[in-house]
Order: sequence, then C-alpha cells, then structure tokens
Amino acid sequence: MSNPKQSLQSLNRLSKTDFHQAEKNKIFIIIDQVRSGLNIGSIFRSADAFRIEKIYLTGFSPLPPNKEILKTALGATDTVAWEHHPDALNLVQTLKSENIKVFAVEQTAHGIPLNNFNIDSNASIAIILGNEVDGVQQSIIDICDGTIEIPQFGTKHSLNVAVCGGIVLWHLTYLKLNAGAQL
Amino acid sequence: MSNPKQSLQSLNRLSKTDFHQAEKNKIFIIIDQVRSGLNIGSIFRSADAFRIEKIYLTGFSPLPPNKEILKTALGATDTVAWEHHPDALNLVQTLKSENIKVFAVEQTAHGIPLNNFNIDSNASIAIILGNEVDGVQQSIIDICDGTIEIPQFGTKHSLNVAVCGGIVLWHLTYLKLNAGAQL
Repeated sequence: MSNPKQSLQSLNRLSKTDFHQAEKNKIFIIIDQVRSGLNIGSIFRSADAFRIEKIYLTGFSPLPPNKEILKTALGATDTVAWEHHPDALNLVQTLKSENIKVFAVEQTAHGIPLNNFNIDSNASIAIILGNEVDGVQQSIIDICDGTIEIPQFGTKHSLNVAVCGGIVLWHLTYLKLNAGAQL
Repeated sequence: MSNPKQSLQSLNRLSKTDFHQAEKNKIFIIIDQVRSGLNIGSIFRSADAFRIEKIYLTGFSPLPPNKEILKTALGATDTVAWEHHPDALNLVQTLKSENIKVFAVEQTAHGIPLNNFNIDSNASIAIILGNEVDGVQQSIIDICDGTIEIPQFGTKHSLNVAVCGGIVLWHLTYLKLNAGAQL
C-alpha cells in the first residue's frame, strides 16, 4: 500500500487565528526555574502541538522574546498563551483556588507513576516542570495535589526537561483521547 | 503527607555494568539523517532511561564522540549500545529479515495514530526518527511495516525530533508495562 508523507497542507493544521479561538486541551504548564531557553522553546513547541491552555514562566526562567527560546519554539510563542509570574508558590495557590489540580513532575517518595495516572477527561490540570539540575523545589511540591513520575529503568537520574514535558503532555492528551474527548 | 524528593541513591538506578548486563526493553531506534548532535544526545539519554536495546545512527547523523551529542547525552553514549550504518535502507531490510517490526515515526496518508498503536509486550520493534526538516525519507517509509504518527492539534508541522522520540519510547514502554511486562 502506498503510504506517502503528508504535506503541510494535507495535515490541515490550524492557523494562528484559529488556534487562538479554538477550544484548548485544559492543561497548564508551569515552567519554574528552568535555565535553558532552548528547553523552554521546545516546551512551547510541544504545547502548541497539544493545544494546551497556557504556559506560566516562573522564577528565573527566561521569557520570550529570547534568542534561545525563539530558536526552538519555531513560532509557538505567538500561538500558546503565556504569562510571567515571579513566584511559583503563589501561582500554585491561585490555581488551586480555581479548582485546577496541580501536579509536580518529579521523582518523590509518593509519586504517581505516569502509567498509573488518571484524570477526568474534562478536568483542568496544571503540571510543574522544574530546574534542569535540581528539579521542582520541595516547597512547591509540598503544596501540590501530588507528583507524577515517569518510570525510568536506566543509569541516569532523569530525562531532559523538554522531553519530560513532551511525554507528560502526550500522556495526558492520550488519556483524554482514550476517554473520547474531542481535541 | 510528606512527599520528599528522592535522592540519586534512593532512586536505585543501574550502574553502567548492570545496565550492560540487564535485559533490555526490545526497542531499537534508527536515527536517520538527523543533523543536530544535541537532538541525538537527548535521544541517547531517553534511550538509557527506557533501557532500550540499541541505537543505529545512519546516513549523515553525527556519531559519538561529538561535542553536541556528549553535551545532552550526559554519559548515555557509554550505556546504550549503538552502531553506525551508512545505509538505513539496507539496515531496515536486515532488521526485517530478523523478524523485527520496523515503523517510521512520520505523518503519512496511512499512519497509525500513536494512541491506537499496539504491540505484543514481547515483540521486538524498531522505530525510525528522521531529519529535523524533511522527516523520514519516503524510500524508507516504503519498505517499513508501517508508520506511527503522534496526533497533533496545533499550528506547527511537527514536534522536535528528540521530544518525538521520547514520546514514542515512553508510549511503547507504557504499553509493555500495561501488559504486565517486567522492565
């Protein structure tokens, strides 16, 4: 069977205007104390692909326009809504007060393995991605609704933060698709 | 409930020697014509985390030791087995003759959406990741057992190749964990 690659036209992607008007996948990402603009740009690109609600950049995470962010975001900083909050702790408290469940992506004593994670297909959820070396701050973990952990079987401590973000965004999207959500 | 972050010790990761001796997740990755060493290193890091069998670097993809690869692999080039093959087409034919199912990760007319993909938990599978701009070559797609597509809902054509690799590795691992496989 012939299986030709799709052109950008045949992929039928949204325009920037359509994206802004479209209903979103109810996922928020908090990028806290991530040092590398390249990682942040890559997370923006994934956030566009999974059409998420909003990215919050907190702490010392660099902000668009930043040369590194723009290099890997490939325009996704113009589509995905984003906001700067100096204080992640404060932001988490605000989101929780708006009935958004907040989970840190981190390896902790009582984390939920991603393969066991479940979520109502209509629920709003925020995930927190932390610093490349130190991960999510303990003081923030302490006020989250829980932590999500990607099971790992190798020698390294962790995955790259942009890869990690992509995996969690995919898996949440997968759970929603599986539950019959329209995206 | 107190939910402290785990230390490297408490994560109980494998040593390099243990990794080499451990049974692997029967996944092979073919990295064909990927230009950026940073992307390749990041794929090595994910391949370590999901303890895959082997990476094949084909075409003009740079090889370790390469400054960019080492920067993002963080040592995973010493744990994950890898091999250089100049000709991906030839390699795919060899793997298929060894009863390994080969799938290109690409957006094609008849791709299988990742959320609908299934695989026997004991089967060996090879996935092909292609060039950052042009994707997997059509001549290679034509001889694969099929293509896997990550559903996307935004404005951009595609995901970053290292993120894309991480998502597919995770999802294959998830399917195996879900089927009760021990990793």
